[in-house]
Amino acid sequence: MLTPAIILIRPQLGENIGAAARVMANFGLRDLRLVAPRDGWPNGRAEPLSAGAFDGHVEVTVHATTAEAAGDLNYVIAATARPREVWKPVFAPRDALIELRKQIASDRRVGVLYGTEKAGLSNEDVGLADAIVTYPVNTNFSSLNLAQSVAVFAYEWAAGVDVALPEGFDAETPDPAVKSDLDGLMVYLEDELDAAGFFWPPLKAEQMKRNLRGTFARAGLTTQEVSTLRGAMKAIAEGPRRRAREAKAKADDAARRDATTKGASDT
Amino acid sequence: MLTPAIILIRPQLGENIGAAARVMANFGLRDLRLVAPRDGWPNGRAEPLSAGAFDGHVEVTVHATTAEAAGDLNYVIAATARPREVWKPVFAPRDALIELRKQIASDRRVGVLYGTEKAGLSNEDVGLADAIVTYPVNTNFSSLNLAQSVAVFAYEWAAGVDVALPEGFDAETPDPAVKSDLDGLMVYLEDELDAAGFFWPPLKAEQMKRNLRGTFARAGLTTQEVSTLRGAMKAIAEGPRRRAREAKAKADDAARRDATTKGASDT
Repeated sequence: MLTPAIILIRPQLGENIGAAARVMANFGLRDLRLVAPRDGWPNGRAEPLSAGAFDGHVEVTVHATTAEAAGDLNYVIAATARPREVWKPVFAPRDALIELRKQIASDRRVGVLYGTEKAGLSNEDVGLADAIVTYPVNTNFSSLNLAQSVAVFAYEWAAGVDVALPEGFDAETPDPAVKSDLDGLMVYLEDELDAAGFFWPPLKAEQMKRNLRGTFARAGLTTQEVSTLRGAMKAIAEGPRRRAREAKAKADDAARRDATTKGASDT
Repeated sequence: MLTPAIILIRPQLGENIGAAARVMANFGLRDLRLVAPRDGWPNGRAEPLSAGAFDGHVEVTVHATTAEAAGDLNYVIAATARPREVWKPVFAPRDALIELRKQIASDRRVGVLYGTEKAGLSNEDVGLADAIVTYPVNTNFSSLNLAQSVAVFAYEWAAGVDVALPEGFDAETPDPAVKSDLDGLMVYLEDELDAAGFFWPPLKAEQMKRNLRGTFARAGLTTQEVSTLRGAMKAIAEGPRRRAREAKAKADDAARRDATTKGASDT
């Protein structure tokens, strides 16, 4: 599939070029075009931030002018936060991507222009574009980092492509427990709580049980979770109970010995 | 309006903290929480990339643990690209923001967890979360820069702010418990289960605890429910324990009488 070209015009910092390439690769963009990069190309400062994006993920071409870089494209959008004197359609990023995908669906080549870190796009560069994309920024703190601007665009590209979840994520939720399993858990819990005198006063017992059932019903427990919770409740209840039985056995034993001793001393 | 907190867990590079703060300010996020930043805080390497975001745009707080950082939050989403053994709802960024805005509309405090640059989030940290947000990344090049991940999230926040929620959506659901209350419940439960020998074999104890925490985190318990469950657990554990104490007292008593009798018969 064709993907939008990212065109960075006179980028100043190699770090931004590297970071832009990385996030392009993250979101499946491959075509990076540099117009007159300040420090030339290649640039040693780009490599570390690219995280390997230049190794077969993103292809970089270098151009002398914006017109040259955009020469083979059918439709170009300029990323700018400032209004311009020439009217053009203005898109939010999401709508820009919808428009670009329409163009791509018709086999047109598309791209986005980003200006320099300091000054953004010149009026001349904006003049080349078919439309403007502008980001929903805080008007009191509106200056986006260049690579962050590319990140948002690249993300919107990927978000709109029909993407599967990353490998290993199960789109389906695990099996929710059948209601009879959940009911078994609740009966067990209620019996334990009844025995412990938890439902008090008696007048409120039914309401308290309903609330408890509501809590567990809403939790969307899986079969495995119901089983774990039942085991956990049993452990809490049975641990002390076993110790109680042991203590009682000991007490009975002592009492028996007591009686025996007494019996012995009686004789 | 409440805004989501961005929680960076053990961030390694000051540059990423600065860049994250800048893009937060760009898109109107204000609450940045650092959990045990590797190089401490403040960090001179953060300032240049923040572009002034720390001057009244973004407030930074530093915390010792994730639990502490998320303590006052009602709903937390973990940003992770790796599937986990505990099932939780998985959102794309846009849907995550829709969910978070619903929560905020009900006056709930929300946040997003981001892990370290190298290893991402630990299973334990993911276990604290109510849900997972995962990005539509290229599976062959999936590692997003930390600040870029924050950028996408912050952008989605700003892109959706004007979106109205359906009438009456949020209205009547009760307050989810804050994370510190839930943590208190889990500590209590784990202590009881530890005492009962539930976590067996020891090698699996951590995993079992994470699963339990995952179950309860996902259940979306309210403050009232946390309190009820704690009471219920206590009742189950204390009922038999009280009886055990009584049995033991009786046993000791019998043993004492036994000893006295013996002593008497010895003389």
